[in-house]
Amino acid sequence: MGISGINDGWFIEMSDQSFAGQARALKVKSFLHHGRSKFQEVLVFESESYGNVLVLDGIIQATERDEFAYQEMISHIPLYAHLNPSKVLVIGGGDGGVLREVVKHNSVNSVTLVEIDETVITLAKKYLPSMSSAFNHPKVDVKLQDGFMYLRAAAAAHQKFDIIITDSSDPEGPAAAFFQKEYFQLLFNALNGTGIVIAQTSENVWLNLQYIKQLMTTAREVFPVVNYCYTTVPTYTSGQLGLIVCGKKQGTNLVQPIRQPSETEQENMRYYNSQMHSASFILPTWAENCLNR
Amino acid sequence: MGISGINDGWFIEMSDQSFAGQARALKVKSFLHHGRSKFQEVLVFESESYGNVLVLDGIIQATERDEFAYQEMISHIPLYAHLNPSKVLVIGGGDGGVLREVVKHNSVNSVTLVEIDETVITLAKKYLPSMSSAFNHPKVDVKLQDGFMYLRAAAAAHQKFDIIITDSSDPEGPAAAFFQKEYFQLLFNALNGTGIVIAQTSENVWLNLQYIKQLMTTAREVFPVVNYCYTTVPTYTSGQLGLIVCGKKQGTNLVQPIRQPSETEQENMRYYNSQMHSASFILPTWAENCLNR
Repeated sequence: MGISGINDGWFIEMSDQSFAGQARALKVKSFLHHGRSKFQEVLVFESESYGNVLVLDGIIQATERDEFAYQEMISHIPLYAHLNPSKVLVIGGGDGGVLREVVKHNSVNSVTLVEIDETVITLAKKYLPSMSSAFNHPKVDVKLQDGFMYLRAAAAAHQKFDIIITDSSDPEGPAAAFFQKEYFQLLFNALNGTGIVIAQTSENVWLNLQYIKQLMTTAREVFPVVNYCYTTVPTYTSGQLGLIVCGKKQGTNLVQPIRQPSETEQENMRYYNSQMHSASFILPTWAENCLNR
Repeated sequence: MGISGINDGWFIEMSDQSFAGQARALKVKSFLHHGRSKFQEVLVFESESYGNVLVLDGIIQATERDEFAYQEMISHIPLYAHLNPSKVLVIGGGDGGVLREVVKHNSVNSVTLVEIDETVITLAKKYLPSMSSAFNHPKVDVKLQDGFMYLRAAAAAHQKFDIIITDSSDPEGPAAAFFQKEYFQLLFNALNGTGIVIAQTSENVWLNLQYIKQLMTTAREVFPVVNYCYTTVPTYTSGQLGLIVCGKKQGTNLVQPIRQPSETEQENMRYYNSQMHSASFILPTWAENCLNR
């Protein structure tokens, strides 16, 4: 064993590279799609207890039962840490979950989603309708393009964003370049003066603390404010996923939200609230000592 | 499939009763012990990536890599929420992990551990030396007895404790009675006037929110203050475990610790800190609405 696959009616998630010696399994009710896109292996199945599940290159990306935790936290943390976010860029996120959250904000006037793999969007529209519901929202613009290329072109055109959300897949796949200094520099350049960027790390403090430390060190070479927070998600390895949040302006407070959700906004959120925003930055002692001291 | 077992060099944890449709696997390096005690099936193995692992009735109880999170949180949350904890009772906890944490507190003068299954203690001393290190501590007294019986006898003898920690196994096994109203009543009676009890729920908000709500409703029939908090533990289902904390005195503040760890105490803690104490009570919106509104 060592590679994800199907065995006796179960989808088994394994990776000798990312999490050797442990595996997770979800019972399959029915297969919905299995094939290779131009960029990666894509599997969609209906599970017995987590709804429909999207798997890229053998790694679970989202299940209908628990996806909202990740989508809400990666979206609302930067949005409520910003005083007046209007222009938002999402890199990756082809399942549409982040889009669905971003358009909940009245202050947001435009969301551009840059996804390299059209297959993910097509399958999400077909099999993950509750995630992909915002693709036709009037504020949304979709670009089928590599995120790196898009950022370079944006820099050349002096395009700037208030919030950038990097919702990429893991560093082993097509998203490898999203975890390097050059990428952080491109993000920095594409932000307005008070802009905030958030990126999923593919890791967490339990699994690979040293990797996160390295990633934060890289980010700190570019951004004056860099913090780590996390969201709990049962179907991700260790049951949680780390997020790295960076502020372009010195002194940006990412930990205490500068705005509260309106009553209507809060009614539409199942995971995020202002207290959870701050609590997600509180780390166990050993992780806090490694990352923030 | 549906019951935990060994397959192709992996330990696979399954339960159609507690978490149908999902499973977790840890790769086995070597088997250390497998047999039935008087009360339950006991397995100890060395894993490839989580150190030695204790399994009771097919459910992972502790791994050397991540056990400290649970042991620290279930111990230090009630201890730092109490002004001057002196007399502590631990029900269950035969692996010794909670004992190890409790004796770190200078204010504690005695810790009584009531464990029904001597086999767990014997195996912990042999295979989990870092967990079982406090069994010979001068403040520790071990009773090989059923927790219920012990509490009834304590009531008859007018014995009272400042802190009671219920570190039982799951409700399907020998610990079934530990999740009923009569048990909470016995705990209430065995506490001093400002006493605090904490119990592991075997569940979490992702897995079985309704069960936790029911448990809290039961506890609220007995205790004036009842809160829910959690600790992250990668090898527990969903990556977290819920704890229920109850204060005997009206108005007890369990969420904000009344004391801070001394510098020496903090140096000996890898997970707990005062901020983490409070953060562990902050819940995702849908869980907060269900449990606390």
